[in-house]
Amino acid sequence: MDSMSLIGMISIFTAGITIAIGAIGPALGEGRAVAAALSAIAQQPDETSTITRTLFVGLAMIESTAIYCFVVSMIVLFANPFWDAVQAAGGGG
Amino acid sequence: MDSMSLIGMISIFTAGITIAIGAIGPALGEGRAVAAALSAIAQQPDETSTITRTLFVGLAMIESTAIYCFVVSMIVLFANPFWDAVQAAGGGG
Amino acid sequence: MDSMSLIGMISIFTAGITIAIGAIGPALGEGRAVAAALSAIAQQPDETSTITRTLFVGLAMIESTAIYCFVVSMIVLFANPFWDAVQAAGGGG
Amino acid sequence: MDSMSLIGMISIFTAGITIAIGAIGPALGEGRAVAAALSAIAQQPDETSTITRTLFVGLAMIESTAIYCFVVSMIVLFANPFWDAVQAAGGGG
Amino acid sequence: MDSMSLIGMISIFTAGITIAIGAIGPALGEGRAVAAALSAIAQQPDETSTITRTLFVGLAMIESTAIYCFVVSMIVLFANPFWDAVQAAGGGG
Amino acid sequence: MDSMSLIGMISIFTAGITIAIGAIGPALGEGRAVAAALSAIAQQPDETSTITRTLFVGLAMIESTAIYCFVVSMIVLFANPFWDAVQAAGGGG
Amino acid sequence: MDSMSLIGMISIFTAGITIAIGAIGPALGEGRAVAAALSAIAQQPDETSTITRTLFVGLAMIESTAIYCFVVSMIVLFANPFWDAVQAAGGGG
Amino acid sequence: MDSMSLIGMISIFTAGITIAIGAIGPALGEGRAVAAALSAIAQQPDETSTITRTLFVGLAMIESTAIYCFVVSMIVLFANPFWDAVQAAGGGG
Amino acid sequence: MDSMSLIGMISIFTAGITIAIGAIGPALGEGRAVAAALSAIAQQPDETSTITRTLFVGLAMIESTAIYCFVVSMIVLFANPFWDAVQAAGGGG
Amino acid sequence: MDSMSLIGMISIFTAGITIAIGAIGPALGEGRAVAAALSAIAQQPDETSTITRTLFVGLAMIESTAIYCFVVSMIVLFANPFWDAVQAAGGGG
Amino acid sequence: MDSMSLIGMISIFTAGITIAIGAIGPALGEGRAVAAALSAIAQQPDETSTITRTLFVGLAMIESTAIYCFVVSMIVLFANPFWDAVQAAGGGG
Amino acid sequence: MDSMSLIGMISIFTAGITIAIGAIGPALGEGRAVAAALSAIAQQPDETSTITRTLFVGLAMIESTAIYCFVVSMIVLFANPFWDAVQAAGGGG
Amino acid sequence: MDSMSLIGMISIFTAGITIAIGAIGPALGEGRAVAAALSAIAQQPDETSTITRTLFVGLAMIESTAIYCFVVSMIVLFANPFWDAVQAAGGGG
Amino acid sequence: MDSMSLIGMISIFTAGITIAIGAIGPALGEGRAVAAALSAIAQQPDETSTITRTLFVGLAMIESTAIYCFVVSMIVLFANPFWDAVQAAGGGG
Repeated sequence: MDSMSLIGMISIFTAGITIAIGAIGPALGEGRAVAAALSAIAQQPDETSTITRTLFVGLAMIESTAIYCFVVSMIVLFANPFWDAVQAAGGGG
Repeated sequence: MDSMSLIGMISIFTAGITIAIGAIGPALGEGRAVAAALSAIAQQPDETSTITRTLFVGLAMIESTAIYCFVVSMIVLFANPFWDAVQAAGGGG
Repeated sequence: MDSMSLIGMISIFTAGITIAIGAIGPALGEGRAVAAALSAIAQQPDETSTITRTLFVGLAMIESTAIYCFVVSMIVLFANPFWDAVQAAGGGG
Repeated sequence: MDSMSLIGMISIFTAGITIAIGAIGPALGEGRAVAAALSAIAQQPDETSTITRTLFVGLAMIESTAIYCFVVSMIVLFANPFWDAVQAAGGGG
Repeated sequence: MDSMSLIGMISIFTAGITIAIGAIGPALGEGRAVAAALSAIAQQPDETSTITRTLFVGLAMIESTAIYCFVVSMIVLFANPFWDAVQAAGGGG
Repeated sequence: MDSMSLIGMISIFTAGITIAIGAIGPALGEGRAVAAALSAIAQQPDETSTITRTLFVGLAMIESTAIYCFVVSMIVLFANPFWDAVQAAGGGG
Repeated sequence: MDSMSLIGMISIFTAGITIAIGAIGPALGEGRAVAAALSAIAQQPDETSTITRTLFVGLAMIESTAIYCFVVSMIVLFANPFWDAVQAAGGGG
Repeated sequence: MDSMSLIGMISIFTAGITIAIGAIGPALGEGRAVAAALSAIAQQPDETSTITRTLFVGLAMIESTAIYCFVVSMIVLFANPFWDAVQAAGGGG
Repeated sequence: MDSMSLIGMISIFTAGITIAIGAIGPALGEGRAVAAALSAIAQQPDETSTITRTLFVGLAMIESTAIYCFVVSMIVLFANPFWDAVQAAGGGG
Repeated sequence: MDSMSLIGMISIFTAGITIAIGAIGPALGEGRAVAAALSAIAQQPDETSTITRTLFVGLAMIESTAIYCFVVSMIVLFANPFWDAVQAAGGGG
Repeated sequence: MDSMSLIGMISIFTAGITIAIGAIGPALGEGRAVAAALSAIAQQPDETSTITRTLFVGLAMIESTAIYCFVVSMIVLFANPFWDAVQAAGGGG
Repeated sequence: MDSMSLIGMISIFTAGITIAIGAIGPALGEGRAVAAALSAIAQQPDETSTITRTLFVGLAMIESTAIYCFVVSMIVLFANPFWDAVQAAGGGG
Repeated sequence: MDSMSLIGMISIFTAGITIAIGAIGPALGEGRAVAAALSAIAQQPDETSTITRTLFVGLAMIESTAIYCFVVSMIVLFANPFWDAVQAAGGGG
Repeated sequence: MDSMSLIGMISIFTAGITIAIGAIGPALGEGRAVAAALSAIAQQPDETSTITRTLFVGLAMIESTAIYCFVVSMIVLFANPFWDAVQAAGGGG
């Protein structure tokens, strides 16, 4: 159980759990926004273009929080500064 | 319990739990969006094409968070950088 | 408690828990979508074909998240890359 | 506590917990769908045949997630690849 | 704490917890379906036969998830393949 | 802490927790069904006989899940196959 | 920490926790049923006798799940088969 | 840490936790029933006597689940059969 | 860590946690009953005396579950039979 | 880690957690009661005196459960019988 | 890890967690009361003085539960009887 | 792991967790109050000054519970009596 | 595992978890307030300036609880008094 | 398991969990705000510019709490003061 393996293990687990938990909120929030948009279109068809434009801006904002999680997950997997440091230090304790 | 086995074990568990937890949010969010779309169609049948187009864009956005989880799960199973590094290092500690 | 057994155990547990947790979200989401479809049909019988078509597309999207979980569960049980690697390495530590 | 026993134990526990947790979602989702169908029939008796047909398709989709869990549970109990491998390896560590 | 006792213990606990957790979902789902059926009858007494027929089909679907749990619980108690294998292997480690 | 005592202890705990957790769902589900029946009677007194008949069938279905738990609890206490096997094996490890 | 004491301890704890958890569901379910009955009487005073009769049947069904828990709790305290077996076996390990 | 002390400790803790958890359900259920009774009186003052009579019967049923918990709690504190047995056995292990 | 101290510690913790958890349910239940009473008075001022009388009976019933917890808490602190027995036995193990 | 310190530590933690958990229920219950009182006054200003009188009685009942927790918390801090006994016994084990 | 340090550590943690958990209930309860007051003013502006007076009395009652927690937190930090006793006893075990 | 370090560690963790948990309640409560204020203004624009005045008093009350948490957090970080005592005692055990 | 490292580790974890948990409440509360503001504008467009002014004051109050968490998080990372003390004491135990 | 590795591991885990938990609240809050904005546009199309302006200000406020979490996550990964200090101290304990 050298340092390299332990950092590898914790990185794998963190990468998975970060995107897994981080996907719950945005998915529910976007579901709510899309549902409201569809109801709004059904209620006011003449404003479809305004509604969809506002919806897309809103979805982009909500998706951004999922993107943050995905970015951190990718950094942990492929650009992990601590992994690099430990490997540079000789790959073990 | 060499390093290779431990990284293998944590990878298997992470791959499973990532997609399992990550599927809850998108499934509920999509369920809500589809339900709203069906109510909207029932209320305003003339706008069916607009509603289904907006629905599909919204579903794609929501599905994207599930896709992130699936991608991370596949990376952990089949393109795991830490597993490769440990195997390259001689397959054990 | 050699490596082979431990990877086997964690694989069995992961396969089960992945599909168990991953089935909650899609089942609830599909239940919501079907319920909305039935209310929509009762409210607007003339649009039955449009409603059921939209419903089936939506159900397919929601079911896809359950499929992801099932696929990962099957991979872990029957095409586990870490199990294969450990078996190839001589079946033990 | 040889390997065979440990894999047996974890298999028994996984088989039970998989179907136990996996039954919650489908049961609630089907309950919701059936409740909506009954309300729809009460509201629009002339569409009974359309409603029950849509209901049965929906129930089949929702039940499928429970079936996935049952299948994994049965595989773990009666067609467990890791159990077979360990038994073939001589039945112990 | 020989293997036989441990497998016995985990089997007893799994049998109980499987049916205990597995009974929550179906009971709540059936309660919801029955409640909707009673409201539907009160609202549309002329459709009683259609409603009760649909209700019974729905209850059977929901009950099936509870049956799965009961079946697994009974298999674990009375037809446990791992218990049989360990007993055949001489009853101990 | 011989095997007999351990199996006894786990059996006592399982028997209690099975019926305790298993009673939550049916009790809530039956409460909901009875509440709906009473509202239905208040709304449509002429259909009392139909409503109560449907209610009793529904309650029987819901109660069945509680019965499953009670049966497993009684089997674990008074007809425990693993306890019998251990006692037959000489009552100890 | 002989066997007798351990079985005694686990029996005390199980007896308490069984009735404690098992009382939550029935109490909430009965509260809901009684509340619905009172609303129904206020809405339809002429059907008081029908409503209270249905209410009492329903309460009896719901109370039955609490009774199951109480029975198991009493069996564990005063008619515990495992305690009797251990005492008959000489009262210790 | 002789047996007597351990059984004493577990009895104290069980007595407290039994009545603590067991008081949540009845208190909430009774609160709901009383609230419904007050609304019913406000809505139908002429039926006050019927409503309060039904309320008291319902409260007695709900209170019974709290009584069960209190009885078990008192038995554990003051009529504990396992404590008596251990004390009769010489007061220690 | 003699027996006396351990029983003292577990008694202190039990006394606190019993009344703490036991206060949640009654407080919420009473809040609901009082809220319903106030709404009822606002709706039907002429029945104030009936409403407050029913309210006080209901509050007494709900408060009784809190009293049970307080009584058990006080018994554990000041009339603890196990503490007395251990002190009588010489104050230590 | 003599007995005196351990009893002191557990007393400090119990005192804090008792009032912390015990404050949740009363605070929410009182918030509900006050909210209902304000709505009632807005709806029926002529009954302000009756409403506030009933409110204060109700708040006193709800506050009583918080008082129980505070009393137990103070007893544990400043009139702890077990602490006194241990100190009288010489202040240590 | 002498006694003094341990009591200090548990005191710090208790002080923080007491006020942290104890602040949830009052904050939510007061939010509800204030919201109801604002709605009541909007609905019945002529009764503003009565409403705000009742609101302030209610807020004081709710705040009192937060004050209890703050008082216990301050006692634990600055007037801790157990800390004083241990310091008087020589500052260590 | 001398005493000084341990007290430092527990202080850091307590300071963070106190304000983190303590911020949930006030933030939700204030959100509710502000939302009610905005609805009230929209409904009764002429009472804006009364509504905002009442709102600010209410927000101050709710914020006070967050302030308590912040104060305890700051005391733990910068005016910790136990840290001072341990440092005065020589900085270690 | 010298003191310096341990304090560093606990500081990193606390800094993250403080802002992570502390962001939930304010985000939900602000979402609620903004949603109410938008509904209020749609309902009473003439009061837009009053509504947005009240909204911004309210958002500032809610944001303040998030700011507290951020401040504590930054203090723990960059102005940690315990870290400074340990470093001044020679950087280790 | 030198200090450097441990700080690296805890940093990786903290970075992931901070943004994962911190993304839930803002995503849900923004979803609510966007949904309210879309309903408001459908209800009052003439105020679209005011509504979207208020929405964007609100989204910025809510997003700020997610930004705090992202900033802390990035600091922990790439500008970690404790990591720098340990590396400067020689890279190990």
